Amino acid sequence: MTTRVDQFALYGPVADDLPAVDELLASLYEVDFPWLREMLEAALGGSGKRMRPAVSLLAGRLGNYDLDLLVPMAASVELLHTATLVHDDVIDMAEERRGRPTAASQFNNAPSVMLGDYMFAHAAEFVARTGNIRVIRNFADTLRVMATGELSQDVSAYEYSRDVQRYLDRIYGKTASLFATASEGGAIVCGAPEPHVEAARRYGAQLGMAFQIVDDVLDFSATSEELGKPAGSDLLAGTLTLPALLYMERYPDDNPIRRAFDGVRRRANLQRAIEEIRASGLLDESLETGRRFATEAVEALDALPAGEPRSTLEGLAEFVVERRS
Amino acid sequence: MTTRVDQFALYGPVADDLPAVDELLASLYEVDFPWLREMLEAALGGSGKRMRPAVSLLAGRLGNYDLDLLVPMAASVELLHTATLVHDDVIDMAEERRGRPTAASQFNNAPSVMLGDYMFAHAAEFVARTGNIRVIRNFADTLRVMATGELSQDVSAYEYSRDVQRYLDRIYGKTASLFATASEGGAIVCGAPEPHVEAARRYGAQLGMAFQIVDDVLDFSATSEELGKPAGSDLLAGTLTLPALLYMERYPDDNPIRRAFDGVRRRANLQRAIEEIRASGLLDESLETGRRFATEAVEALDALPAGEPRSTLEGLAEFVVERRS
Repeated sequence: MTTRVDQFALYGPVADDLPAVDELLASLYEVDFPWLREMLEAALGGSGKRMRPAVSLLAGRLGNYDLDLLVPMAASVELLHTATLVHDDVIDMAEERRGRPTAASQFNNAPSVMLGDYMFAHAAEFVARTGNIRVIRNFADTLRVMATGELSQDVSAYEYSRDVQRYLDRIYGKTASLFATASEGGAIVCGAPEPHVEAARRYGAQLGMAFQIVDDVLDFSATSEELGKPAGSDLLAGTLTLPALLYMERYPDDNPIRRAFDGVRRRANLQRAIEEIRASGLLDESLETGRRFATEAVEALDALPAGEPRSTLEGLAEFVVERRS
Repeated sequence: MTTRVDQFALYGPVADDLPAVDELLASLYEVDFPWLREMLEAALGGSGKRMRPAVSLLAGRLGNYDLDLLVPMAASVELLHTATLVHDDVIDMAEERRGRPTAASQFNNAPSVMLGDYMFAHAAEFVARTGNIRVIRNFADTLRVMATGELSQDVSAYEYSRDVQRYLDRIYGKTASLFATASEGGAIVCGAPEPHVEAARRYGAQLGMAFQIVDDVLDFSATSEELGKPAGSDLLAGTLTLPALLYMERYPDDNPIRRAFDGVRRRANLQRAIEEIRASGLLDESLETGRRFATEAVEALDALPAGEPRSTLEGLAEFVVERRS
């Protein structure tokens, strides 16, 4: 069995400090309502990678590494991320996420809306604890970008007039903006020099892009067991990610996705598209795009001195595109 | 027809500045999605009293009245309030609010969740614009208190083991905490002296308590036309407010509410309770409690010099308990 410590080993010099973030998150469980405690544990506990908090802490190493500021910063980012997932589950009516029933499927919608709000509120409180107005502004701005991204994702389900550029914009809003804020925030609260802050921001943004693209590829390529949800679930939910968009580009005139989105035997056509995408070279082509972003993430670190945290951040960019789940 | 200016006259020296808050709120309408614009206008437009923004601006008069800070402060409070209403409507499945269809009833749940998140995000951005860490912390704390209040309200629907003290705690979380933050925030951003900041906070909290109690009485006493929703709608939704709690206290052993909550002819028993509450002296008794809070709000102003904004704040406390809708 993989322990939490093994899981964090990837994060090198900050591995030992990540449990403090888990602990701060666990402080949310101390509520009067047993049902809320259960929901919080289901949403925040488990084996989350804590990649965003790790990036914050690593970026903190670019300045005067101060856990009193970094731990709330990192926890706020993780909470914002998780709160968004909880509300997304209500929006998407997703029934499983990472192999666990979602809050929205275990409970009805109302508590999930409240659970998300409760986590947003604590995220705001944690980021306010940093006392750093620049970080707080970034955080609020990211919240706005993510909320707007949430809107455009939902409104465009079962719409095929989409292209790759709009996909990239969308995943920036959904994922990369928060990685950027996590990374830049760690550097800012620890008073890193401005060029390093800028490098951290660019690194985070590109890493987030790579992360999301790989996630979207894994949604097709991984087995249901590895994924904890049915393979191809994004497409089945009417969301076109990079592999599906490339597939649409390859067969522009007629293809099963187009037919499904036109309402013709939806499930069967989407299943066929999923199989064809899995059998095509489009997943590798998509991964290649992910790798380019990971390379750009590494290049963003050029401004940093050799050694730590640079080498761990570089390794992380590699991990993100090599991972299998 | 009452114009916006007439409506704001109540707010004395800040009446002319409130349209700037409306304008900042209207900046949210400039979005790419026509459906979102419609939802925003439905939620934020209309004839809202803007009482929370008015209190912020009035409290700003206790220091160096600075609209560059006060307008975003006031807009953030109004947005937080409205976002909460939008999510509450999802939670309560309320079909009408203030005589207009709610976002949740006009559209399905998903967009309402997103609309609320979008407003929360802008609320956070606006409060961050004040650049004042103390105000931001209060704001985050209020968000937390409100989210917790939201939880306890929902979890206790159709539960009758409630008492007046728990009701008062609940309306503090739901309403008074935000009034307190609105009032204190205005004073803080304008650099009011500390005793005045404290007076503003206490005033806001007590005013908010009075406001909510009167709201809860009006839910029983006003006609459906005045209210824009069916009279007694709180009780019909299973929520016990002050008049209903006093009614339960008067008839502790057996009463129509108890029977309804036990699942016996729910609608008929609740309708009967609403009629009996309307005919009883319990609405006046409840109003008396509201008046006591309004009096305490006025007393909180003792520390302030005579003249403005004190006299307008005093008038507002009176208005809150005398209003008919």
